[in-house]
Amino acid sequence: MAPTDRFVSENTFYVRYAETDAMGIVHHSVYVVYFEEARSHYSRVQGASYADFERSGYWLTVAEVYARFGVPTRYGQRITARCWLGEFKSRGLTFMYEIVDAETGQVCVTGYSRHVCINHEGRVCKIPESWAQIMRKGIPGAQDDT
Amino acid sequence: MAPTDRFVSENTFYVRYAETDAMGIVHHSVYVVYFEEARSHYSRVQGASYADFERSGYWLTVAEVYARFGVPTRYGQRITARCWLGEFKSRGLTFMYEIVDAETGQVCVTGYSRHVCINHEGRVCKIPESWAQIMRKGIPGAQDDT
Amino acid sequence: MAPTDRFVSENTFYVRYAETDAMGIVHHSVYVVYFEEARSHYSRVQGASYADFERSGYWLTVAEVYARFGVPTRYGQRITARCWLGEFKSRGLTFMYEIVDAETGQVCVTGYSRHVCINHEGRVCKIPESWAQIMRKGIPGAQDDT
Amino acid sequence: MAPTDRFVSENTFYVRYAETDAMGIVHHSVYVVYFEEARSHYSRVQGASYADFERSGYWLTVAEVYARFGVPTRYGQRITARCWLGEFKSRGLTFMYEIVDAETGQVCVTGYSRHVCINHEGRVCKIPESWAQIMRKGIPGAQDDT
Repeated sequence: MAPTDRFVSENTFYVRYAETDAMGIVHHSVYVVYFEEARSHYSRVQGASYADFERSGYWLTVAEVYARFGVPTRYGQRITARCWLGEFKSRGLTFMYEIVDAETGQVCVTGYSRHVCINHEGRVCKIPESWAQIMRKGIPGAQDDT
Repeated sequence: MAPTDRFVSENTFYVRYAETDAMGIVHHSVYVVYFEEARSHYSRVQGASYADFERSGYWLTVAEVYARFGVPTRYGQRITARCWLGEFKSRGLTFMYEIVDAETGQVCVTGYSRHVCINHEGRVCKIPESWAQIMRKGIPGAQDDT
Repeated sequence: MAPTDRFVSENTFYVRYAETDAMGIVHHSVYVVYFEEARSHYSRVQGASYADFERSGYWLTVAEVYARFGVPTRYGQRITARCWLGEFKSRGLTFMYEIVDAETGQVCVTGYSRHVCINHEGRVCKIPESWAQIMRKGIPGAQDDT
Repeated sequence: MAPTDRFVSENTFYVRYAETDAMGIVHHSVYVVYFEEARSHYSRVQGASYADFERSGYWLTVAEVYARFGVPTRYGQRITARCWLGEFKSRGLTFMYEIVDAETGQVCVTGYSRHVCINHEGRVCKIPESWAQIMRKGIPGAQDDT
């Protein structure tokens, strides 16, 4: 369940036909894309743009992703992607996700992704302070492990 | 350019990271998915649901698709997908598309798709009247060629 | 590392351009698709066809998927997807994966997926014996927990 | 039908599950990806690598794509993607495609894509001679319109 002690972003959209598979449901790989768009949205509503972050010379690479599939979703269904910060460290962070039916609130899929900050030379580095500040807003009491 | 003598639907959304390719722009195959979501949206705002149409025993199969790529779009960009009916016949129809930058209105990609109505046995058939009525609303003066 | 006490399937293919993203590397969600194709290949070389399995009234739904991203892969690279059985139970199984560079053998991505057998009514059920026999071949000493 | 007066490349592969949609068939947008992989293969078997072409400072951008869908294809089916040069000009070229069932040879989908050569500054330019020579091999009698 989405936590109550930190910021949880929500974006709601329709399942696209191309996202379904021959089982008549959303293909499981698509939720990894929903997760990604959920964290794009998270940054956006926190006042940061991941596109700007990239342009400033950094990437948050994906180190791990996990998804647990409970209830299938289908074409035309309105779903809400919830996203919040799990862990925030100086060189990386974890995003948590919940994909829920937008009408009923039923939780369909959950998951997380772990990210590491690298620069465009591919070296692991500290998340730049301007971006770290914005991320820390979402997880009150978060301290850097610097 | 989108026509002025008929209904043009518009839905606006953000480009997802997964939709980009190594050129740093939206992969050309993705616009075919945007077109599809544009026509889903078209039906939705006209008061019809393509999901219901399918459940009632029919499909609008895609017979042809064409896209012309003018200006690239990028991750995080807000784009508007415009959709309108080109041609409406008793057994098929054509949708037209324009993908534009949501801020500037610049037209980036245009295209069309031609569809044929089939039933779940795979036979070409007339578009059911309830659905045809809704579609005809979008193209005043449209006459069936029945 | 791929185990030596059981069957490990390998299929080798080229990274497609559409699978890359704006970082210039294969998008992380694509490995979930590579995993899936790896287990399709696993069944195929063991003499079973997942398509036939489906047609016989069953599905192996995906309950969980996990991926760990070590080394990026790029357009045009030849990669080998390795797949083996982790766990085999009467109603479900786990597949393990390794995506390696086909030339150097360097391990790039690893992961697993857990599956549950359901029938087309959506009920959890035992994996049909004909299919279970084929799967058990790949994991010597495997015993059903029936 | 594939022509007999020029080189036609063929690559054969299995339809992936993720490529299907809720109609139980390969989603129409996926053929645009098959086309792309077919032209990657075309270059490869002609002794050129599109990845090298990119690294040398150029791109063959996609200006237009068209597909005509005749017969659906399904998960697990082996299909062959045929590709040949339609037109070859100093600054662009056209690839033609046929997607056929690998067992029966039945033509399922046909299409073409038009490409323009640009450099990494985004300017339209002549296709570099080393690459043009390789492409011209595939279309005997081709003359540059220089």
